[in-house]
Amino acid sequence: MELEVERRIEVLQRRCAARPNVLAMGGGLPARELFPTQLLSRAFVSALAHRTDESLQYGWPEGNARLRAWVADRLRARGADVDAEDVIVTAGAQQALAIATHVLRGERTGRASVEVDAESYPAALELFRACGAKTVTTMTTGTAGTNGTAGTATERRRYRDVACVYVVPGASNPRGRGLRGERREALLASGAPIIADEAYAELRFDGRTERPLLADARDRVWHVGTVSKALCPGLRVGWLVPPRDGRARALRLKHHEDLETASLSQAILAELFTHIDEDALLTRARLFYRARAERLMAALRRTLPAWRFEEPEGGFSVFVETDADLDDTDLLELAAAHGVTFDPGRMFRASEATRPLALRVCYSAVSGAMLEEGVRRLAAAFREAGRWRR
Amino acid sequence: MELEVERRIEVLQRRCAARPNVLAMGGGLPARELFPTQLLSRAFVSALAHRTDESLQYGWPEGNARLRAWVADRLRARGADVDAEDVIVTAGAQQALAIATHVLRGERTGRASVEVDAESYPAALELFRACGAKTVTTMTTGTAGTNGTAGTATERRRYRDVACVYVVPGASNPRGRGLRGERREALLASGAPIIADEAYAELRFDGRTERPLLADARDRVWHVGTVSKALCPGLRVGWLVPPRDGRARALRLKHHEDLETASLSQAILAELFTHIDEDALLTRARLFYRARAERLMAALRRTLPAWRFEEPEGGFSVFVETDADLDDTDLLELAAAHGVTFDPGRMFRASEATRPLALRVCYSAVSGAMLEEGVRRLAAAFREAGRWRR
Repeated sequence: MELEVERRIEVLQRRCAARPNVLAMGGGLPARELFPTQLLSRAFVSALAHRTDESLQYGWPEGNARLRAWVADRLRARGADVDAEDVIVTAGAQQALAIATHVLRGERTGRASVEVDAESYPAALELFRACGAKTVTTMTTGTAGTNGTAGTATERRRYRDVACVYVVPGASNPRGRGLRGERREALLASGAPIIADEAYAELRFDGRTERPLLADARDRVWHVGTVSKALCPGLRVGWLVPPRDGRARALRLKHHEDLETASLSQAILAELFTHIDEDALLTRARLFYRARAERLMAALRRTLPAWRFEEPEGGFSVFVETDADLDDTDLLELAAAHGVTFDPGRMFRASEATRPLALRVCYSAVSGAMLEEGVRRLAAAFREAGRWRR
Repeated sequence: MELEVERRIEVLQRRCAARPNVLAMGGGLPARELFPTQLLSRAFVSALAHRTDESLQYGWPEGNARLRAWVADRLRARGADVDAEDVIVTAGAQQALAIATHVLRGERTGRASVEVDAESYPAALELFRACGAKTVTTMTTGTAGTNGTAGTATERRRYRDVACVYVVPGASNPRGRGLRGERREALLASGAPIIADEAYAELRFDGRTERPLLADARDRVWHVGTVSKALCPGLRVGWLVPPRDGRARALRLKHHEDLETASLSQAILAELFTHIDEDALLTRARLFYRARAERLMAALRRTLPAWRFEEPEGGFSVFVETDADLDDTDLLELAAAHGVTFDPGRMFRASEATRPLALRVCYSAVSGAMLEEGVRRLAAAFREAGRWRR
């Protein structure tokens, strides 16, 4: 993406974030209503009283032992061969992605592309590009599935040229779709290293958490997780489970980059998870976001019937595609004037294509009737954009 | 440093950390007695109650606006031209160092060395080396000062070949010495980019905080600060003030690497600093560490008179030099058996030289009479090492 456009989008987003009357249907923020403030307070008090050093002193680069054991337990319950020693606590999922990317870049030099969905998480795409990799979609295109040639020599050859494959299983970003069936099989059969970003994996509306890719390709999967979506982002805690032969390099990188993840955040979580029923929290979050998703989809279908989107299976957003030959950033500017924001589609596209118009619309942080109001404002901006073009 | 030796040191350190009867005179940990747990608790409660979004939601990559204003105010009071907009909050000083290093590496390709003190902070040295830079000491050697040729054409030429100069002003690590006079002048006259790591700058025993290098070379200094030494490390909060033309690149890197620093840690600090007298805390810390430093030095002089060290002017440690032809890691192993640890001198040396024997001895995290006991154990290990050699 051109720097100038990127800046323009950022300026718009920042300006809107400062105006409370603008409805934020961009950004992918979790709902503040779900932040477990009481539980966090109790965990904080307990951690500081009984685990002062664990909370406030320096720790080891791999992170809090109790928290790593919790991560490993949950992954083992889903079929993966993971011990606490395999887990590295990171500053959110983003740092886990960055570490995996840097290690793989060092290992697989000369392979200058990363295979991604046709639309994917912008900060991952930016990271890959900043590392000098092209983002390509030779096969794992967003909606198409595979062509049934999984594991053939051709597939393997195709994957051999990429540094790695980046996927967001469970509920992708921005489409909120799972990774299943032939596509999953093809990915596993490819032999390529996989960065599996489970940011939304536990927020599927059907309550089913997919078998982690890690469980089927332990030696090639760089597993990434986080508490940012299901609990809250402010702790800035995620984790990386690298292949066993990548752990030492990943840990050195972690040490060089920031020594360790915040002890306090980790200690709060370690306390929290000894006292709460994580699955009850997840169930509540799934129902909550499903209701918002349904309300947004109904409003979109009613108000903007020409806009196409797949029904999300989880996550925070729908990805809207249109036939309109409009610029997404121009539309964002108009939408902001109408009191609503969204994320321009170009940010998500592996190809960086700007046309036809597409947009990510997030339902996660907009409550009740404000979802319909947001869609009305989007429609008004869209109509105005159409008039301007004529 | 060879990977094998590095691992051996780490294994020893980890084993000792798990044994409460081992006195930790290595590691450079701040004293837990100074952790402001009550103040942190009050700040946490206040932040969560009144600033929920600021504490728990995603924020912008540059960090909490109130915290950045606090950093800028304090730097301005010391003579530097810094606004809140110039400050990037980072995951501790280490991430600030890493960002500065990566940006400078991108800008100054082909310059494959970093100028450092003859002894310096190990995690910075490791970072530079991991980035492919040699650590060199053409001029800013630990104790010698300059040769009076500051700013001459020769000096400038010398510095032109380095990617940057890394210094720890105020109180260096491991020597705890200030950066003054001719050395400071030469550095400023050199024209080279400077990474100024102020980790210990506010912990000088004389209570004087040196004028920041930033105040005299705004366009070349990458200023690094942290709350880890004066408050506590567990929040994992530091900051970077890059030259103005480096800000955009630094901020992009921050965004790619971990999106932002933990909102909760930042909000706690922002609350804390509106309610406390930071300078009173600093005064207490200075007196506290000065007392420990004096007690350690007295014990060393009494028990190990052949060991040489400069008196620290601040910080957490002394750097001991000896004439002994002993291996520092062998000595560490013996010391651990005697119930005390230290940091092997090779970790700090730009040259990576292992002989003659040197060691960093930290007084920061050892209380009262345990300092004398620690020195007795060091002496016993040292005597035993001497016997083994014969």
